Amino acid sequence: MLTAETDLVPLKAEIAKNHDRAVARLQDWIRRPSIAAENLGFPDGANHLITLLQEVGFQHAELIDTTGKPGVFATLDAGAPKTLGIYFMYDVKQFDPAEWKVAPPLEARIVDRDGLGKVMIGRGSSNQKGPQAAFLAALDAFRTLNRKLPVNLVLVAEGEEEIGSPNIRQIVYRPHVQAALAQTIGVMMPSGTQGVDGSVTVYLGAKGVIEVELTADGQTWGRGPMRDTHSSYKAMVDSPLWHLVQGLSTLVTADGNTPLIDGLFENVRPLTEGEKVQIAIAARKITERQYQVVTGATKWIDDLPFQAALERLVSQPTVNIEGIHGGYTGPGGKTILPHRASAKLDLRLVPNQTAEEVLGKLKAHLVRRGYGDIEVNFTGGYNPTASSADAAIFKAQIAVLKQRGIDPVLWPRVAGSYPGFAFTEPPLSLPAGHYGLGHGGGAHAPDEYYLIESSNPKISGFDGAAASFAEYLYELAK
Amino acid sequence: MLTAETDLVPLKAEIAKNHDRAVARLQDWIRRPSIAAENLGFPDGANHLITLLQEVGFQHAELIDTTGKPGVFATLDAGAPKTLGIYFMYDVKQFDPAEWKVAPPLEARIVDRDGLGKVMIGRGSSNQKGPQAAFLAALDAFRTLNRKLPVNLVLVAEGEEEIGSPNIRQIVYRPHVQAALAQTIGVMMPSGTQGVDGSVTVYLGAKGVIEVELTADGQTWGRGPMRDTHSSYKAMVDSPLWHLVQGLSTLVTADGNTPLIDGLFENVRPLTEGEKVQIAIAARKITERQYQVVTGATKWIDDLPFQAALERLVSQPTVNIEGIHGGYTGPGGKTILPHRASAKLDLRLVPNQTAEEVLGKLKAHLVRRGYGDIEVNFTGGYNPTASSADAAIFKAQIAVLKQRGIDPVLWPRVAGSYPGFAFTEPPLSLPAGHYGLGHGGGAHAPDEYYLIESSNPKISGFDGAAASFAEYLYELAK
Repeated sequence: MLTAETDLVPLKAEIAKNHDRAVARLQDWIRRPSIAAENLGFPDGANHLITLLQEVGFQHAELIDTTGKPGVFATLDAGAPKTLGIYFMYDVKQFDPAEWKVAPPLEARIVDRDGLGKVMIGRGSSNQKGPQAAFLAALDAFRTLNRKLPVNLVLVAEGEEEIGSPNIRQIVYRPHVQAALAQTIGVMMPSGTQGVDGSVTVYLGAKGVIEVELTADGQTWGRGPMRDTHSSYKAMVDSPLWHLVQGLSTLVTADGNTPLIDGLFENVRPLTEGEKVQIAIAARKITERQYQVVTGATKWIDDLPFQAALERLVSQPTVNIEGIHGGYTGPGGKTILPHRASAKLDLRLVPNQTAEEVLGKLKAHLVRRGYGDIEVNFTGGYNPTASSADAAIFKAQIAVLKQRGIDPVLWPRVAGSYPGFAFTEPPLSLPAGHYGLGHGGGAHAPDEYYLIESSNPKISGFDGAAASFAEYLYELAK
Repeated sequence: MLTAETDLVPLKAEIAKNHDRAVARLQDWIRRPSIAAENLGFPDGANHLITLLQEVGFQHAELIDTTGKPGVFATLDAGAPKTLGIYFMYDVKQFDPAEWKVAPPLEARIVDRDGLGKVMIGRGSSNQKGPQAAFLAALDAFRTLNRKLPVNLVLVAEGEEEIGSPNIRQIVYRPHVQAALAQTIGVMMPSGTQGVDGSVTVYLGAKGVIEVELTADGQTWGRGPMRDTHSSYKAMVDSPLWHLVQGLSTLVTADGNTPLIDGLFENVRPLTEGEKVQIAIAARKITERQYQVVTGATKWIDDLPFQAALERLVSQPTVNIEGIHGGYTGPGGKTILPHRASAKLDLRLVPNQTAEEVLGKLKAHLVRRGYGDIEVNFTGGYNPTASSADAAIFKAQIAVLKQRGIDPVLWPRVAGSYPGFAFTEPPLSLPAGHYGLGHGGGAHAPDEYYLIESSNPKISGFDGAAASFAEYLYELAK
């Protein structure tokens, strides 16, 4: 019988041997962006992923059509007693090449970074192609060594994660896909979970999210100009742009930090004592500096001390403005009264809020405050995700990490969002979470990167990340 | 001795004879845009105006350097007892060609418009090259007929009217320019003052204006991210974009219509009884439909009846958002927390507010409300303009119009702004205003137009506008 002890040494050697090919595969993947918001790279991205999965040993891989962008369903039958679910995304976030200072977003250039080693710069390098490519590299090592995987795999992937996974149900609940997932012990998404200090965080859930675009328009409002007009008429004509600004201003407190949407906190479950303990322990393991680096901020809301800021991060629903636009924004001024303006918002949800509930409350709030004319265009989103630390997919993570001498940070839920709800909610009711050594940064931002060759023994590079997946599969099989 | 009676018939014939050349001159002028906000067409625009002025009989025309864009100073000595001041602008407002539906902004195409006749579409056609070209056509007719003008002319022009005339003092108060202006009976700016019903409005003043750009930035604020970060951190990090929105929201009432800047109304002079009477008379001469057409609005603030809306238009200072921009504004969503956002505002001023006072009050208000970090970049502006209807430049207008059978609307002040303050305030203390038959529309908006050949006997086309200037010069000489 195969065991981790006998297999891991040759597997790690094989991962190292295959390093150049695996890194080239990641670079090639980054050079093929799929961006749902821009309708770019479809169905190419799904087809390319199918090829990648077939290359590393999936016997079955098929495209799953949806009313949006296609998903992918694949299985790798190793004849093992247990089956692990895997969730991939093949799409990436939009980018503006002009903002990338270190290297262009689609070149996948490898550069030196002080204190880290060699990193690959590229859109999707960290979120999520890099960690996913490391996972594929682990599978590839099994294949090239002609070793069977310790667990079977059922993989689902989508191409609309970055627009809020509007159609993930059409993939996950396709009868044969759902039936296959129902046989799994849980669903894991490959991720680079190490901080710049090497620490690892195990996320037991994620916030939900809704994304909406709010538009105020003279035509819809029936007030203000129907087209941009001269600004002198402001003295007798209403302004849709002011209407939007004043409508927005009612959504949060004056400091911009606490939602004021009517009833929004009704179903917000406060942190449990257990979650508070997890955060308190976490606050001693991670550093404030680490959070300052990733957030780009030096102070927290209300000048909170670090632990209190972390509690806020985990527990609070948010209303964020992603972007706002209206009227003249070119050089100098232009004395117009604009007829239209819009703002893109994301609202993060915590248990036990639901996406449907929050969207309804946002709309009702605007109506009640006299902003019912403001169009609320829901562009995507879903419920929060929550799993228990007792689930096998988490216990195996913690065991592997402890064998590596890493005492992981248990974290109640990531403040970001991923559509784990599709797995954790009925009918599947599976545990779901992220896993993987390795490190990346700059998700959704310019100069996104993923660590390829680490100069810091505490942080895994690409091969170390791949090895961590191999170890995990063995641990799960125990 | 020359008189209007003997001269006007041949002058009008000469204007008609020169029509094609004068219209071609206007088209050529529109095709040479000068846009200060975009640093486009300088000093070419000033030099071209000098050529135009020399062509129509100005003996002296010179470029006046400023620390911004150059001005023009020109004189036409007709040996007459009286001298009229003329104010020109040679710059035009910015434009976005994509928004122009009828014809491109720089083609100066002449098209048919129902109910009006042939109009020229082009940026600056109405504001202000069209009326100015009609004035030049009048002067040209005197020249080609070898007739002396009934009055001498002193002309000043600037190329920064559309950015708030930041350097007009450097032109008007240049010693030899100021000395020449001091000899005039007042200053007139050629304008197409007729409405679509043929009515004429005589504006006795103008609102002042300041234009500012407000920018909230994590760096300046010392809070929030220093670069765009992932929106999930909103739960622990402040948002410069929310800070801007909430700061803006304190500047006006919830309906967006009444300024709430601390102390802003301290020096606002309410309408005098005389001004209210002027407006009441005006409200009977002009139509609500006319204002609906030019504003593109169907309702007025607070659903005010027309006369009350007009009182508001004349009497109220305003805070308008010309444009706002921050974060991600492309297709779909992008879950970022932006580090920076800005809004362009214009504030219109009424007597006895001053530009300096209002700018200071805006800044103090933001500081007092906790938004002192928001950068206030003053990009231009000036005080209100006010003249008495008893001044010769207005009495002559009214006389000419009445001879034409037009009973003009006397209007206390235009709700828009022009830098008449440079003439009406000390040291010059001259009356200043606009004049001219003819009609245009779409100032600062797409598809700006000026009427060239009128199909409506009540509205003057280009030649009629030119003739109205000739009549005016004769009337002034009386």
